[in-house]
Amino acid sequence: MQFDHAGVATDDADGLATLYETAFDAPVAHEETFDGLRVVFLDLGNGYFELLEPLPDAEGAIPSYLDRHGPGLHHVALATEDIEGALADARAAGVDLIDESPRPGAWGHEVAFCHPNSTGGVLVEFVEH
Amino acid sequence: MQFDHAGVATDDADGLATLYETAFDAPVAHEETFDGLRVVFLDLGNGYFELLEPLPDAEGAIPSYLDRHGPGLHHVALATEDIEGALADARAAGVDLIDESPRPGAWGHEVAFCHPNSTGGVLVEFVEH
Repeated sequence: MQFDHAGVATDDADGLATLYETAFDAPVAHEETFDGLRVVFLDLGNGYFELLEPLPDAEGAIPSYLDRHGPGLHHVALATEDIEGALADARAAGVDLIDESPRPGAWGHEVAFCHPNSTGGVLVEFVEH
Repeated sequence: MQFDHAGVATDDADGLATLYETAFDAPVAHEETFDGLRVVFLDLGNGYFELLEPLPDAEGAIPSYLDRHGPGLHHVALATEDIEGALADARAAGVDLIDESPRPGAWGHEVAFCHPNSTGGVLVEFVEH
């Protein structure tokens, strides 16, 4: 599998996008509102930063992460051309799946998450474009 | 700048390498002992996971992170062909630097870290191969 993006929880996606664009030469590739979040993808050439800012009063994994941990690195996403096969391989290797089957994610992708308790504390997402 | 690797703090680099190789199709690309750490790079085709396990009784950023946070995602590294220029651009954009100039890192690379307090809580490393 290939690197797709590093997901970042933030309370200011646009401010962080401006900083990363200037500091890391990572221009905005895509932005949308999805699932209670403002989502901004920044282009690294071979992958992306995904900035995730909860909308006011939103609930879910990102607001909960921000409350618990503060802003920072939230997950790593790996790209696959066969997300069902990737989930089967991960399950066979002993990985616990948060999503047993793919679900719609940002940018029109199919996504599924692995449980960090089974992957060394790292929240890993699979993405099929 | 391009994605280079996602750094993972772990207390079992070899066990996690075996899992990631099987579950994520990410074979070992390089391994060494460096700066009090067992370091294993896993190949994602367009970048790497860098697994970082402290040697017994080692001190430093990774043992401290494991004590404070437990195993998990520690940093994101961006590749550059001009690390001095990258540091100057980041500084000019308002990023606080942990390393004002490059220092030797694992795998013979030159590396420098940005302070997460100035990058939305994300520990960002610059790497020149």
